[in-house]
Amino acid sequence: MSSAPITADALADALAALRDRAPLVHAVTNYVTAGFTANVLLAAGASAAMVDNRDEATLFAGVADAVLINLGTPHDTADVYHATARGAQDAGTPWVLDPIGAGGLPWRGALARDLLEYRPTAVRGNASEIIGLYGLTAGGAEGGGGRGVDSSDDPADAVPAARGLLEWAGAVSASGAVDHVVSPAGTTRVTGGSVLLTRVTGTGCSLGALVAAYCAAVPDVGLAVAAAHTHVTVAADVAADRASSPGSFAVAYLDALHEVSPDDVRRRARVEHDA
Amino acid sequence: MSSAPITADALADALAALRDRAPLVHAVTNYVTAGFTANVLLAAGASAAMVDNRDEATLFAGVADAVLINLGTPHDTADVYHATARGAQDAGTPWVLDPIGAGGLPWRGALARDLLEYRPTAVRGNASEIIGLYGLTAGGAEGGGGRGVDSSDDPADAVPAARGLLEWAGAVSASGAVDHVVSPAGTTRVTGGSVLLTRVTGTGCSLGALVAAYCAAVPDVGLAVAAAHTHVTVAADVAADRASSPGSFAVAYLDALHEVSPDDVRRRARVEHDA
Amino acid sequence: MSSAPITADALADALAALRDRAPLVHAVTNYVTAGFTANVLLAAGASAAMVDNRDEATLFAGVADAVLINLGTPHDTADVYHATARGAQDAGTPWVLDPIGAGGLPWRGALARDLLEYRPTAVRGNASEIIGLYGLTAGGAEGGGGRGVDSSDDPADAVPAARGLLEWAGAVSASGAVDHVVSPAGTTRVTGGSVLLTRVTGTGCSLGALVAAYCAAVPDVGLAVAAAHTHVTVAADVAADRASSPGSFAVAYLDALHEVSPDDVRRRARVEHDA
Repeated sequence: MSSAPITADALADALAALRDRAPLVHAVTNYVTAGFTANVLLAAGASAAMVDNRDEATLFAGVADAVLINLGTPHDTADVYHATARGAQDAGTPWVLDPIGAGGLPWRGALARDLLEYRPTAVRGNASEIIGLYGLTAGGAEGGGGRGVDSSDDPADAVPAARGLLEWAGAVSASGAVDHVVSPAGTTRVTGGSVLLTRVTGTGCSLGALVAAYCAAVPDVGLAVAAAHTHVTVAADVAADRASSPGSFAVAYLDALHEVSPDDVRRRARVEHDA
Repeated sequence: MSSAPITADALADALAALRDRAPLVHAVTNYVTAGFTANVLLAAGASAAMVDNRDEATLFAGVADAVLINLGTPHDTADVYHATARGAQDAGTPWVLDPIGAGGLPWRGALARDLLEYRPTAVRGNASEIIGLYGLTAGGAEGGGGRGVDSSDDPADAVPAARGLLEWAGAVSASGAVDHVVSPAGTTRVTGGSVLLTRVTGTGCSLGALVAAYCAAVPDVGLAVAAAHTHVTVAADVAADRASSPGSFAVAYLDALHEVSPDDVRRRARVEHDA
Repeated sequence: MSSAPITADALADALAALRDRAPLVHAVTNYVTAGFTANVLLAAGASAAMVDNRDEATLFAGVADAVLINLGTPHDTADVYHATARGAQDAGTPWVLDPIGAGGLPWRGALARDLLEYRPTAVRGNASEIIGLYGLTAGGAEGGGGRGVDSSDDPADAVPAARGLLEWAGAVSASGAVDHVVSPAGTTRVTGGSVLLTRVTGTGCSLGALVAAYCAAVPDVGLAVAAAHTHVTVAADVAADRASSPGSFAVAYLDALHEVSPDDVRRRARVEHDA
């Protein structure tokens, strides 16, 4: 399959497409960051509905423009994740797996590995989660430190695992100081952001949801995932210019997600791609 | 029954009554917007407790000053909604039904319809939810687009459905660009607010909770519901003067809910009433 | 056992120790304030994971640096609380009980009383909760008004109950206008803060989580609990200098939790200790 080149122009066009499409993301996610995730989607130009009960999740996976499954707080809900992923696969709705904690928590790691069978459009995690998730597959070596939901690995070190996960997913990203997006077309590195992103809860989870939104608006999966990472990175750069503590940074970040224009992306994106 | 005329003075007095009574709202609501809802109630002058488990919900419906049932994220909790509504009805506690998603999700639409039997003091929803909910009753025509939790209808078009729902509820409101509040005394239109309200999650849900708080502080239901809508509309007007992006708008909105005085309501309310 | 004297220097050193240790808090808490609690921990210098499912909670109580059990929104989860508390006790992980609503809700009061058997490192509540919890033990007199999750008692009046609870806990604190921390070494009063803390949801719940974080960083329990209360009180003082309405106060509070230095604590702490 031929892939769109990942250039500043292509990333700017992807943001324009997101705003134009305004995708509705069906987010089956955790209760800690659900509100922030909805606010990130709304600020960025998408919208959100958390329809994560067993009576409606499957149906809604066929109604929404994109689906997120985030394993942040599972509560006897393995069946809901399976039903949602199957619903997305059956309906052809793009869906994103965010394997929160797969690096350090074996039970939910196994759950994440099982969900790969529904062929996610993209997988997004921190480096420990990507390494850990691949380690749970037949081909993967064990690994992936992480402790709870935090990463102890560098995204660059997760690239081999991300490549391995392409057996199941259209693209795989590992977030960190420099985000790495891996697709069949190569590896894209997105540089920038702020260390304050690690002092606000839900910045990773909401990025996963935004990846889903971009997958609904941009046909090329590698470009879609890179564009989501670029959008949040540019917004974080803008926010870090305005705020230096986490409370006001979070507010400035939501503002910037809304304000960032395709031209801002074109000028500020720091993205390198290796085919 | 005679109704209070809905004038600027009456709306100002209603805000004063809310602040004086400081009602405790028992909110059985969704996990996405529960924190924001509590903050809206606290900022406005009420308080909140989310006691939504099957061992305590009924008891607490008799302890609290008002009850909200919001169907945003049902999880095998139909029995909790029924027990809470019955508890409120039995104790004579005013209660509000917020039929989130009733416009587009049939399973929870049926749940919302069943809860009408406990005779809510008020029903608040977006236009699609009000149309959809009435469409599920014996008298209602089918309808109510909506997609997930978003509305695709105009509040003015929901007025006939709102009137139909008065068979069960004391007043019914449909939120949107111009909010419409329908009671036996007629229809009240509340104009104002900001499009940024649609870029912050939970502004509708928290309005439902504030409607409940006003129902505890103001005996006339039509006036109580109109006063809640007026309070948030004036606060959104104030916030829109201070902020133009969603992160800072949400902060300014909470500030303004706290700061708005009865005199501000008297001067800034844009309310029309047709008997 | 000898206890650290609770001086301004000791409190400043405790903050330095918290930042140095950056403890990971396993928070089994309520969905209303979980996001804010995580943000408070991150801003203060700790981190958070909410791993509150029955398949992982016990394991994670042995992995994390500290554990919080907050009874804000129990949902058929009594077994999870028990398993988490037992896991913390078995692993020697410091753990904090926050008996939300124990003052006014009998069912969860009994649950909180049962959890005392796992010997919490500390108990934190409002005055009504502390009085109510002790009243449910064999030695306690009945009492503890409270209504839902709000307190109707003064922290000074909770000191006898707090002393009684030392039969189970290493230290007990009652929050309010003047926080009272009771340990075998005596009673510490922490003065300051802002009435706006009562207009933002989760300031109490997140304090409980911060108490847990301090218990992981500071060996002396009485000092650890007093240091957590001092940290939030100084931060609230700073925030109240910057903001006078609840939305912007909450933002300023998170900023200040991050910015407050050991020197700020040394200069601004208003703490009195009676051995």
